[in-house]
Amino acid sequence: MTSSTRPNPTTDAIKYYWEDLAVGSRRELGRVQPTKEEILCFAHQFDPQPFHVDEDAARASLFGGLCASGWHTCAMAMRLMVDNFLKDSTSLGSPGLESLKWLNPVFPGDTLTLHQTILESRAMSKRADVGLVRSAWDMVNQHGDKVLYMDGYGMFRRRHPASD
Amino acid sequence: MTSSTRPNPTTDAIKYYWEDLAVGSRRELGRVQPTKEEILCFAHQFDPQPFHVDEDAARASLFGGLCASGWHTCAMAMRLMVDNFLKDSTSLGSPGLESLKWLNPVFPGDTLTLHQTILESRAMSKRADVGLVRSAWDMVNQHGDKVLYMDGYGMFRRRHPASD
Repeated sequence: MTSSTRPNPTTDAIKYYWEDLAVGSRRELGRVQPTKEEILCFAHQFDPQPFHVDEDAARASLFGGLCASGWHTCAMAMRLMVDNFLKDSTSLGSPGLESLKWLNPVFPGDTLTLHQTILESRAMSKRADVGLVRSAWDMVNQHGDKVLYMDGYGMFRRRHPASD
Repeated sequence: MTSSTRPNPTTDAIKYYWEDLAVGSRRELGRVQPTKEEILCFAHQFDPQPFHVDEDAARASLFGGLCASGWHTCAMAMRLMVDNFLKDSTSLGSPGLESLKWLNPVFPGDTLTLHQTILESRAMSKRADVGLVRSAWDMVNQHGDKVLYMDGYGMFRRRHPASD
């Protein structure tokens, strides 16, 4: 079992309870560099549109070249979130996003850097031991061009449950 | 080359230009039944949180059992969209979503059915040959529980470009 597949961290290993996610705080969550093979593999499995699986068709498309499925970009961002943030947290999952923008194509060999900014935090009325956090996630390539923007929610266990 | 990886369909094969996507129309886009192995494979690669990769941890989580990464659910929905709609269309890609909701967990063996409803359609001011469509995508399981809702945009080539 690798560190990325371990069960919930022990209490000692937890860096981020709900209370630790301060509104306005921003952190870098690492980088990823997709290869052409990875882009083709994901696209053949989940998004076999011509501009994701066929180099000639991709050159003739709006994107100008073979590029990653937007869902692949989201999945790569998710892996960075897990490895560099969620695995050290009390994360309980996400109910969804308010916004998801694919702003520029992701090409093979691009270096993508992910940042998280905490936008909002609130207690959950139905669960005294859980808090909700709204975050912005943005990913830029090596040219500084934004490729992905997400604004979404995460549920985190609280260090100190609310008392009635 | 399989039908799902072919380049843009020939003009004869195109069923859906921008003009063919009538506001209010709704279509079923097929079904998918993820296996435990597929759920684990995706999660190990992109979302190795305990409730997606560890059956004991998953039973103890809010979800009550091993369940698919939300991104895997999106990716499965995308595959249905491509196979049963986009491959027969003049789709040029998507700039993003207004909303994405993971409403219930997806468990191994669930049968997921996807529907699309066209919400809005408009010409693009910058591109006379392209139109924008906003759609709702909803996925339900075999119990009729909604598991995924997305509200997002797609760009489609027009049959008849606008004249100035």
